[in-house]
Amino acid sequence: MNETSRIAIIGGGSWATAIAKILRENNLEINWYMRNPETIAKFKQLSHNPRYLTGAEFDVDHIQFFNDINEIVLQSDVLIFAIPSAFLKSALKNLTVSLKEKFIVSAIKGIVPDENMIIGTFFHEIYQVPFDSIGIISGPCHAEEVAMERLSYLTISCLDTKKARVLALNLECSYIKTTISDDIYGTEYAAVLKNVIAIAAGICHGLRYGDNFQAVLISNAIQEIKRFVDTVHPITRDIKSSAYLGDLLVTCYSQFSRNRTFGTMIGKGYTVKTAQLEMHMIAEGYYAVNCIKEINDEYNVHMPIMKAVYNILYEKISPAIEIKLLTEDLR
Amino acid sequence: MNETSRIAIIGGGSWATAIAKILRENNLEINWYMRNPETIAKFKQLSHNPRYLTGAEFDVDHIQFFNDINEIVLQSDVLIFAIPSAFLKSALKNLTVSLKEKFIVSAIKGIVPDENMIIGTFFHEIYQVPFDSIGIISGPCHAEEVAMERLSYLTISCLDTKKARVLALNLECSYIKTTISDDIYGTEYAAVLKNVIAIAAGICHGLRYGDNFQAVLISNAIQEIKRFVDTVHPITRDIKSSAYLGDLLVTCYSQFSRNRTFGTMIGKGYTVKTAQLEMHMIAEGYYAVNCIKEINDEYNVHMPIMKAVYNILYEKISPAIEIKLLTEDLR
Repeated sequence: MNETSRIAIIGGGSWATAIAKILRENNLEINWYMRNPETIAKFKQLSHNPRYLTGAEFDVDHIQFFNDINEIVLQSDVLIFAIPSAFLKSALKNLTVSLKEKFIVSAIKGIVPDENMIIGTFFHEIYQVPFDSIGIISGPCHAEEVAMERLSYLTISCLDTKKARVLALNLECSYIKTTISDDIYGTEYAAVLKNVIAIAAGICHGLRYGDNFQAVLISNAIQEIKRFVDTVHPITRDIKSSAYLGDLLVTCYSQFSRNRTFGTMIGKGYTVKTAQLEMHMIAEGYYAVNCIKEINDEYNVHMPIMKAVYNILYEKISPAIEIKLLTEDLR
Repeated sequence: MNETSRIAIIGGGSWATAIAKILRENNLEINWYMRNPETIAKFKQLSHNPRYLTGAEFDVDHIQFFNDINEIVLQSDVLIFAIPSAFLKSALKNLTVSLKEKFIVSAIKGIVPDENMIIGTFFHEIYQVPFDSIGIISGPCHAEEVAMERLSYLTISCLDTKKARVLALNLECSYIKTTISDDIYGTEYAAVLKNVIAIAAGICHGLRYGDNFQAVLISNAIQEIKRFVDTVHPITRDIKSSAYLGDLLVTCYSQFSRNRTFGTMIGKGYTVKTAQLEMHMIAEGYYAVNCIKEINDEYNVHMPIMKAVYNILYEKISPAIEIKLLTEDLR
């Protein structure tokens, strides 16, 4: 990407809206894809997203909206995907235009179901996007705080440092600082795993484990994440950096985390279905844990927390029993 | 120490009371020193500590109270110190009995003011206690949750593994799990530094920085702690373990943390004096940051968070300005 690249956002949720807000702080003209034409019409009329981060005002004259995926791809050089990973394949199913020449950026933090691939690998394998044209945007960054313009830090990962740097520049503003990285696997896997851990944290909270235990859980979790990413993609990385540990912390401790909220409901005895209905939102970690479990069947990394969440959500083991067993594995 | 060692607790605060509760779960007879004879009388009458963790009931027939420091030292083999570090020297000022043959355990998590020594070093230098007779009890463990019998994990450090193991066994119960370690310097320094970081977290909270920023602050903080302890005492340790990272997390994120509460008041514009008066409690980190700053003048470790807290509390720099500068140093 360079200074004249046309940037597109794919997705109409809160994280997509936060990224759009940041780009607009730099006065960039943006292309924005949303599936639903009515949402677009309403957005134009209200000058804000009708459903998410409604407090974030936009000058819609500088936004070109699309609900045709081929059209937006044709007219853009950089495509920032910010939709739940569970919907990625359906969003792309009508795509006929090539992605090979595009800079594909994942702000998804998920795994493509069925394929069991992180987003970068998925675009590389299925759409032949070269790995040095794949970027990742990582937190710690809850969209709600971007809307409030509270200082946040993003890590932009790409094997091509120049691309990472230009994208990072476009995302810097008075309340966003950026760092660049070349760890496109590690940051994405860590972002996926933190959602699973946040569910675990929620479950324990729902079961009335206290703050002392949460601290132990999360200390063990970052070690578990390190074991996994170091096995799957062994490069030098400091897992204590914001993109890994920070992202885990904000998701596990923040009131805005839907994965933690989902976990809390499970810990309190809700079924998966009831919890999902009540939340009106997707807890990414629910899908992620199933994918990670399958991926890890190959690597066999010791992942007691991930396994406990999997057993509770997919094997219907009682949360109380499963977490009791987990406590024996932590230290 | 061995199975027949007589264990003493020095201190009448909430952490001392929590440790006494845990030891009593194992039916140990305990010696307990409190400065104030009236507190002892009231404790005996009420069967609980009159001021701290009042919900924790004790069978006082199995506790021998002392308010003579020499008497309790004479009658005990293991001395667990759980008083604010600022009061340690005055608690010991009348001591004439030797400590050389005792197992001295610090549950203090502080630095002795003026001496600028962590507790272990202090007992070694001033009281000639051999290093392999010095133990450390580390969290993550807020006393209030021990009172509620919520599952917590303690790390017991001693260069003499056998001593660590016996003490650990005496502290294990249905709601306490233990790990042992030989890192008496690292666990104590980390426990001291976490209080400073918690003040920083509170200051940022008081200044209305959000959860995204807190996650970045704490990710940077554990790196800062690692740099410091690895410089001061370079041994192999995993800073992501519960005794280091976990202890940091519970202190920075828990509602029970008085250091964080103190920091929040400073961030909101209270003076140090007003904040201390209003809290009726000592925020250990206030003294610790001054000591750590002096110690680090020798080592010159890059510690931007510690330095910011020092500047705010001791150099009277405006919290808003100092934290703004700090944000440039984090990533």
